[in-house]
Amino acid sequence: MTQLFQKAAIIGVGLIGSSLARVLRQKGLAARIVGVSRSAENRETAVTLGIADEMTDDAAQAAKDADVVFLCTPVGAVGSVAKRIAPVLKEGCIVTDVGSVKTAVIEAVAPELPPYARFVPAHPVAGTEKSGPANGFAELFEGRWCILTPSDDADEKAVALVSRVWEEAGMKVERMTPERHDTVMALVSHLPHLIAYTIVGTAADLEEQTKEDVIKYSAGGFRDFTRIAGSDPVMWRDIFLSNSDAVLNVLQRFSEDLTALQRAIRWKEGDKLEDLFRRTRNIRRRVIEARQDQPENEKLLLKRSARQK
Amino acid sequence: MTQLFQKAAIIGVGLIGSSLARVLRQKGLAARIVGVSRSAENRETAVTLGIADEMTDDAAQAAKDADVVFLCTPVGAVGSVAKRIAPVLKEGCIVTDVGSVKTAVIEAVAPELPPYARFVPAHPVAGTEKSGPANGFAELFEGRWCILTPSDDADEKAVALVSRVWEEAGMKVERMTPERHDTVMALVSHLPHLIAYTIVGTAADLEEQTKEDVIKYSAGGFRDFTRIAGSDPVMWRDIFLSNSDAVLNVLQRFSEDLTALQRAIRWKEGDKLEDLFRRTRNIRRRVIEARQDQPENEKLLLKRSARQK
Repeated sequence: MTQLFQKAAIIGVGLIGSSLARVLRQKGLAARIVGVSRSAENRETAVTLGIADEMTDDAAQAAKDADVVFLCTPVGAVGSVAKRIAPVLKEGCIVTDVGSVKTAVIEAVAPELPPYARFVPAHPVAGTEKSGPANGFAELFEGRWCILTPSDDADEKAVALVSRVWEEAGMKVERMTPERHDTVMALVSHLPHLIAYTIVGTAADLEEQTKEDVIKYSAGGFRDFTRIAGSDPVMWRDIFLSNSDAVLNVLQRFSEDLTALQRAIRWKEGDKLEDLFRRTRNIRRRVIEARQDQPENEKLLLKRSARQK
Repeated sequence: MTQLFQKAAIIGVGLIGSSLARVLRQKGLAARIVGVSRSAENRETAVTLGIADEMTDDAAQAAKDADVVFLCTPVGAVGSVAKRIAPVLKEGCIVTDVGSVKTAVIEAVAPELPPYARFVPAHPVAGTEKSGPANGFAELFEGRWCILTPSDDADEKAVALVSRVWEEAGMKVERMTPERHDTVMALVSHLPHLIAYTIVGTAADLEEQTKEDVIKYSAGGFRDFTRIAGSDPVMWRDIFLSNSDAVLNVLQRFSEDLTALQRAIRWKEGDKLEDLFRRTRNIRRRVIEARQDQPENEKLLLKRSARQK
């Protein structure tokens, strides 16, 4: 147990914020944790679950005297939260976030902060399709990557402290530019979510009888997409809006590739199909080799989801 | 233990065929199981694993004197197999299949069979992205649906026997027309696979540095698509070619929906995005309510995949 902070403020106690709070608590990283939520229900849940020492709906009150402030709201809200807390931040306070988009978050947050605050943008690449404080758990981050995108003139001690927090959560920490982060995430995460939302939306528009069949037989593949498309609507709306350039770019590539495949099916070009399917199998192999296919972690998630039913 | 058949022939001992063979064996449904594979390696594996009493590369030899023949090859091959076995089929022999497409399979198989054979087209909706006899297991079918699409003048005793086999495997059996089956599966299964293949293919075309990053951070969503896109290339080539009309039809709807979403992102129409994402969440809820999201079964699969590493 190494205490890194006297007071930690967590603005937003959804899946990520509440899981982080659990980590801080279990590892004793902060002497005092103050959480912020606009929802009275979430504040009550967080207190009942013992996630935070104190819950408030006032971000400024939570940030006052804090040694570290974690911005864990949907990315569309980080700018206004930064503006709200800026006047009360104490000298040297670390401000960090967990947003899935980095360029837009930096543009929104950095100009609001006083020069004596130390900003370290971060993205713990972890999550489930569940949201809210009750669905968080400390093991969520284990074995996953956390990407930090601090500027070149960032305070290195602050960067090291934020790294330390995520390492304590079980993550492997990497550093890259916000632009590279956003390009990679557009393909790794944002496009898959966009496509899952689309295909499930296509099904939602079917006439009721067919829709019932689709749900009934969803184990054939569709189900995996519904899981992704069950993710938090506001969080994902904000991600697509704030990383729109990179998302539209990969979407364009994807559409071209899909059109080519559509044409191959129409003209019965079996060799082209088989050739593509073999190449994608190789990518799968590399994902497994990179140990990003982690049954241990997944089993844990499934065990939790079974328990919650 | 109820023996339903003296001799059962299983043409094709891949994931489904070998899993079915294990069920027949464990439940004592057939006194003798003869398996067919063109691959010497698969024949040896099947014998070593005790999946079949006998393995041959000659479908006709296996089908001779059989009470039931299960066609478990990729759907593109069922027509030629039916032609090959037709001359040796004994009177009243049940011929059934496991193909993911039904109209094309019926068109390919039915005309080849002698009038005294009893044809019952079937599709056990189950699978993993793995292929080959070593990856099969008897529990694969548990809790899943099996869809039968016999013609109106099919022999009802044969239909009942095939139902019985899949019920013994733990499946819930449904009956519908081949056309309805193909329409529903185009959306439930074929479109999701096509899209997963496409997005993973889009990644495969990236320059190597970005591709490495995509693999490294694949847990953000991309990984789920690589699992689907790791499925058997020949099996899926055949599915897309033989259900092309229905697949192209749902693909057209999907593309329209994706284009609408693309436009909403470009014009920053957040309300439209959020509205769609809320609707898809409802579909997810219905999938869970329909108990198609089965952690128990998934846990078993994960346990197996962990063991195999």
